[in-house]
Amino acid sequence: MQQRNATVAVIGAGDYIGAEIVKKFASEGFTVFAGRRNGDKLAPLVAEVEAAGGRIVARSLDARNEAETTAFLNDADKHAPLEVVIFNVGANVNFPILETTDRVFRKVWEMACWAGFVAGREAARLMLPRGGGKIFFTGATASLRGGSGYAAFASAKFGLRAVAQSMARELMPQNIHVAHLIIDSGVDTAWVRERRAQIWGKEALDNPDLLMPPASVASAYWQLYQQPRTAWTFEMEIRPFGEKW
Amino acid sequence: MQQRNATVAVIGAGDYIGAEIVKKFASEGFTVFAGRRNGDKLAPLVAEVEAAGGRIVARSLDARNEAETTAFLNDADKHAPLEVVIFNVGANVNFPILETTDRVFRKVWEMACWAGFVAGREAARLMLPRGGGKIFFTGATASLRGGSGYAAFASAKFGLRAVAQSMARELMPQNIHVAHLIIDSGVDTAWVRERRAQIWGKEALDNPDLLMPPASVASAYWQLYQQPRTAWTFEMEIRPFGEKW
Amino acid sequence: MQQRNATVAVIGAGDYIGAEIVKKFASEGFTVFAGRRNGDKLAPLVAEVEAAGGRIVARSLDARNEAETTAFLNDADKHAPLEVVIFNVGANVNFPILETTDRVFRKVWEMACWAGFVAGREAARLMLPRGGGKIFFTGATASLRGGSGYAAFASAKFGLRAVAQSMARELMPQNIHVAHLIIDSGVDTAWVRERRAQIWGKEALDNPDLLMPPASVASAYWQLYQQPRTAWTFEMEIRPFGEKW
Amino acid sequence: MQQRNATVAVIGAGDYIGAEIVKKFASEGFTVFAGRRNGDKLAPLVAEVEAAGGRIVARSLDARNEAETTAFLNDADKHAPLEVVIFNVGANVNFPILETTDRVFRKVWEMACWAGFVAGREAARLMLPRGGGKIFFTGATASLRGGSGYAAFASAKFGLRAVAQSMARELMPQNIHVAHLIIDSGVDTAWVRERRAQIWGKEALDNPDLLMPPASVASAYWQLYQQPRTAWTFEMEIRPFGEKW
Repeated sequence: MQQRNATVAVIGAGDYIGAEIVKKFASEGFTVFAGRRNGDKLAPLVAEVEAAGGRIVARSLDARNEAETTAFLNDADKHAPLEVVIFNVGANVNFPILETTDRVFRKVWEMACWAGFVAGREAARLMLPRGGGKIFFTGATASLRGGSGYAAFASAKFGLRAVAQSMARELMPQNIHVAHLIIDSGVDTAWVRERRAQIWGKEALDNPDLLMPPASVASAYWQLYQQPRTAWTFEMEIRPFGEKW
Repeated sequence: MQQRNATVAVIGAGDYIGAEIVKKFASEGFTVFAGRRNGDKLAPLVAEVEAAGGRIVARSLDARNEAETTAFLNDADKHAPLEVVIFNVGANVNFPILETTDRVFRKVWEMACWAGFVAGREAARLMLPRGGGKIFFTGATASLRGGSGYAAFASAKFGLRAVAQSMARELMPQNIHVAHLIIDSGVDTAWVRERRAQIWGKEALDNPDLLMPPASVASAYWQLYQQPRTAWTFEMEIRPFGEKW
Repeated sequence: MQQRNATVAVIGAGDYIGAEIVKKFASEGFTVFAGRRNGDKLAPLVAEVEAAGGRIVARSLDARNEAETTAFLNDADKHAPLEVVIFNVGANVNFPILETTDRVFRKVWEMACWAGFVAGREAARLMLPRGGGKIFFTGATASLRGGSGYAAFASAKFGLRAVAQSMARELMPQNIHVAHLIIDSGVDTAWVRERRAQIWGKEALDNPDLLMPPASVASAYWQLYQQPRTAWTFEMEIRPFGEKW
Repeated sequence: MQQRNATVAVIGAGDYIGAEIVKKFASEGFTVFAGRRNGDKLAPLVAEVEAAGGRIVARSLDARNEAETTAFLNDADKHAPLEVVIFNVGANVNFPILETTDRVFRKVWEMACWAGFVAGREAARLMLPRGGGKIFFTGATASLRGGSGYAAFASAKFGLRAVAQSMARELMPQNIHVAHLIIDSGVDTAWVRERRAQIWGKEALDNPDLLMPPASVASAYWQLYQQPRTAWTFEMEIRPFGEKW
């Protein structure tokens, strides 16, 4: 692996999608700054990346805290020029409107929208003087469609999409690629795997491709990374071939 | 005017759109609860409504404060059954992304999205046991489209739209009409009137219909109010005939 | 009923939605030109409108034939100024892609899209010199969303929506209100009524409001007609309160 | 170059985008069937592909003629299994609504929508029995938005998008990747290059990246080709970094 003098910051480096993004960019030679709420949980990921010859800096990061995010990105940028920031914090909840408490609504927004705004803005602050960079946001079905029980989650995801779109319109002419990747399906996790037959029926046991592997999300982000600036995508959605939509 | 034993609550009863909504529903016989940040500024509206034989209760209301909103709606409902709630709080700002402070982003969201969620939920709490009602939200161009400088405003308006859509999908089958009215233009205000020629050119001086009068928004809400439940609109947009879109 | 010196042309005056639109505008004092494939089938509608004191001119009209449409609209305009044209031709079909024949695809497009383009253009030709008018198009769920089996129908309805949107952007500044009314549900017809319990379950028998009565579509068109040019709607959707969407 | 035992059919193999798609897939080892109205004009492309060691079959093809398209795809499939079909026929025109003749409206639809439906259906007919394949359609700004003067073009492109979306919903669960690639900008052609300074100003002379090179479209199609079926994209848009949208 050829090492690059550049960093990638992954905010929301959870066990599934986030971890795969980290591994993909590390395997391409970037030093990856990986942040998640409880940084201790990153130990196995660090071990795996380093065993493969990659470079990773693991951090505890509460993305709702603007000072923490700013420090996280600044540190990454001091390490080597920050080329890519990927905001991947999830917060999927479902409650009937009357049971959607103030606390839930606000917390989901802080995690899924506010934290993304802060990350995007601070990424732009570091990238603009250097004349380029990439800022990617993870979206969901709820980014495009509200639904019964989704007032909190869809509101936050709609809001994040507006941040991404506004930043794209302002920053792409300044050579910063802003993209919004919509994952329009459930993702294959241990939890889902256990419940697969119950949720999707026996068919899903025989056909693992009906679930999206987290690594496929990382591949999609890598495709976005590789696009030349003559043909940037702002928004694309991905789903497994068998998904109803 | 025949009086009705029903109340309408207008949250965000400002000098232009809000005031016209208040006057329209008062003129149709509802007792209108009108709330705005500084309730003292409602005095001329109260005088005008009462001079026309209408009934109005004016209140200071910080819509970002859930206790205040809850009390406001509960009081309206105690006065007479709360039939309609219209959420009309605006918060249009434009800043480059690097100048969009934490404070601005959070405050715009609290005014334009969070306050709407609280108002909608508390309206539903009062309407569901009674088996019906109407909850309307004012949208804007930025509800559908982010733009350079609009990260804060579009994010809040996208978020409000998701709240409205999620509530509609949950509550319309329970006989509560939830609608999102998108105002896709500037509105004719004293401020705009003064600057009309500068902004729109001399043509606008000769053709006042190029600006949307606040009363037209009230008419559109009245159309939504009148729809039978066999043919409810969730979303419609309005713009003056000469508007570019 | 006060008679108006103006005509309304309804293209696609079928037994349900079309007939109700005809009756509504006739009851408001317009002379209504009603066209449908087989004009003989308009006899009961003519009798009903005239018994109510309304004025109607019934015609056989193949809306796919541009000469027939042009003559139909010109005749209406000679009778009295043509104020409103409503294009309401339907063509809902569903076939798997491999069974969607050339003939079906072309015919559905000719009925639902091409005919609408011709009607809209010829309406504009008569209205522009006079400085105003209204051109309304009936849309469907398939105007916004393709689906398995809907290549032909959705393609035609998407195409019609593009015609309406392009005409709106060109003609609204010239004082012609162009609107696209999306009916996002099935409509209550004799055929549906018979099959109601099978399709929607017993609940639908007890609650007729779960189906959209054709008269509700006419009411929505009347709302569009009444909008002042300071607040025109291009697009709105209607559905019964209990509809899933 | 390693040759593959598979064909790619490009319908609309014009001098710019089409030619680059042909070259890309030929360089990846496919035998490419290239069709355009006047097949004689394919001679330089054939020479270029063959000089690079690629394999290409050039054909005159009027894509509006279903028999010709069927024969073209069947021939490709007989040569080697048809793995990818790319429909890339353009028909951009702009006329005020009153000057949009019947002939123009119908011809634009036949080229940009009808021909795409036929190509897609016949591709599916060959791919379904084999259990897989890829069918890609080229979209444009007008696929998403009607505009003044665009009744004909936008109607055809909206219609094509509905075909693509309906086919995707039906065929993706049967292992056929259907995608719609939206080119949201002008493309760098000899014609545009000549007029560059006039259209975009002097800035465009200094910064060629403001125009989309046709090869970037081919790269985007190659990205779609490479996606695993666990994470297929139906729709993505591309534009140069400096494009206003």
